[in-house]
Amino acid sequence: MTDEDDAARHREKMAKRKAVQDAEVAGKTIEKGLLMVHTGSGKGKSTAAFGLALRMLGRGRKVGVVQFIKGAWSTGERGLLEAYAMLEWHSMGEGFTWETQDKARDIAAARRAWEQAMRMMADPALGLLVLDELCIALRYDYIPLEEVLSGLAARPAALHVVVTGRNAPQALLDVADTVTEMKAVKHHFAAGVKAQQGIEF
Amino acid sequence: MTDEDDAARHREKMAKRKAVQDAEVAGKTIEKGLLMVHTGSGKGKSTAAFGLALRMLGRGRKVGVVQFIKGAWSTGERGLLEAYAMLEWHSMGEGFTWETQDKARDIAAARRAWEQAMRMMADPALGLLVLDELCIALRYDYIPLEEVLSGLAARPAALHVVVTGRNAPQALLDVADTVTEMKAVKHHFAAGVKAQQGIEF
Repeated sequence: MTDEDDAARHREKMAKRKAVQDAEVAGKTIEKGLLMVHTGSGKGKSTAAFGLALRMLGRGRKVGVVQFIKGAWSTGERGLLEAYAMLEWHSMGEGFTWETQDKARDIAAARRAWEQAMRMMADPALGLLVLDELCIALRYDYIPLEEVLSGLAARPAALHVVVTGRNAPQALLDVADTVTEMKAVKHHFAAGVKAQQGIEF
Repeated sequence: MTDEDDAARHREKMAKRKAVQDAEVAGKTIEKGLLMVHTGSGKGKSTAAFGLALRMLGRGRKVGVVQFIKGAWSTGERGLLEAYAMLEWHSMGEGFTWETQDKARDIAAARRAWEQAMRMMADPALGLLVLDELCIALRYDYIPLEEVLSGLAARPAALHVVVTGRNAPQALLDVADTVTEMKAVKHHFAAGVKAQQGIEF
């Protein structure tokens, strides 16, 4: 095969691919507020939500963040986001994890966070709401799943929502528009590497 | 079971979990520059790399980005990152995809991008290098895999690298410290939803 043949074949293949791509793009016409879920045991669930928040802020739209677990995002990231006046951030503060060891306090904190999320969903100016680590609160039954599902269903039609956290319940996946499983194929923690600045925090 | 019993059981369970967690953290002592791969057909590969870049910049470290395919990151995101003096960004410009339909030009562009990546890896000030969509260039054999593997292996020991793109070659996964597969469990494109501002671009 000559170089010319190869180049011609490549051109033909890519022209076909472009035609398929163009047809696919043309076939997509719906605009709607998406319910996106980032789940799985791999890295990148909150980091990708953080990237989305910045993309939306970069487009001049208002973004809300409710952090259901303390420390999932570093204060460095929070600082970066808070440089935008269009960001409204709420953290559970003390958060809940194995650190608090107080179930009643954890439930009260999860409840407050969810109520905050409901208030923000009612804000017609909001473009994106990040419910970071909400899946953890659902997993521990700190907030009833039915309440979360009906709250999400009743949100403004154009509002995008990202829910993050491991072990997303199936009923949430069922109603989501997009579900990405961040799957840990290999993780450096397993090889004894510690959390490092700029990577984990 | 009384509420007191339940609270006590919760406390005990969480205390155990915290002990496990603390032991795990104590067992991780290695510090090293990580080779991280974000692959799979789901969303969030580049978005999570973008989030990592911001985290590293937020920590005052220098970040390099080489974009192997045009348009993978929006100009909005690039603008956000370029607000940091500590960012060095290189894009292949015309990029390669089914858009160019010119294999020789694509190969030359991929080659230039890889040479740029090699130059940046030699910069001792660099904390993180993002090689966005490098996997695509490898998949099309535009850059020899062996050259990429030996280039990455020869980088400074403390330099973190993130490689993104679908279909990461197995030999790259084998030498990576961390591999996350962004798996598309469900994608709104399949339901006819178009790319929307603030989400896809």
